[in-house]
Amino acid sequence: MSESLSPEAFLKAVKYDDKGLVPAIAQSGATGEVLMLAWMNAATLAQTLASGRVTYWSRSRQSAWTKGETSGHHQHLIEARLDCDGDAIILKVDQLGPACHTGAPSCFYRKAD
Amino acid sequence: MSESLSPEAFLKAVKYDDKGLVPAIAQSGATGEVLMLAWMNAATLAQTLASGRVTYWSRSRQSAWTKGETSGHHQHLIEARLDCDGDAIILKVDQLGPACHTGAPSCFYRKAD
Repeated sequence: MSESLSPEAFLKAVKYDDKGLVPAIAQSGATGEVLMLAWMNAATLAQTLASGRVTYWSRSRQSAWTKGETSGHHQHLIEARLDCDGDAIILKVDQLGPACHTGAPSCFYRKAD
Repeated sequence: MSESLSPEAFLKAVKYDDKGLVPAIAQSGATGEVLMLAWMNAATLAQTLASGRVTYWSRSRQSAWTKGETSGHHQHLIEARLDCDGDAIILKVDQLGPACHTGAPSCFYRKAD
């Protein structure tokens, strides 16, 4: 079951939170591993869909950041999907190098025993 | 690369947002498909780790809800992981039936063309 939306319709269907943000999950297109969760606003989501290079919104720095711009560990967009109620996004990506700033392949390297 | 935490240490390491919530991504342990994103507070996360049955916090209803309690589409916890900065969780689950209330296997059934 899959429904295709134009980029314009996709952008319109997103429901942002009270800060104008939506959580975006990055998943490796190659392995299916979930790499990270970060945030987007309308501008960085539009930029990501248009350019194919993933750009997030930093809540701590209050600015846009293109993944890999300092580390070189870019994320190239394979596919963007929106959930049923429009308030979460998943990005299938081609991840260059490790996704995490710690050097781990995924940010989710801590496991409950 | 993986780091093991006791349930107590895991619970302490979580950084909740200003509403006391953390986003939790549910991923199928069987297929690797990302099923949904929902929210947890400290109590529902502790309950999930202790019981092995996934319980979220509903932001709209302001109450705890155990996935499947009305639909029968339970999520049994396989593994819980926390990200590098402690503000996002991934739950690998054994999903009974479809994850989405629409009947779709995953909530992420809308795709940008």
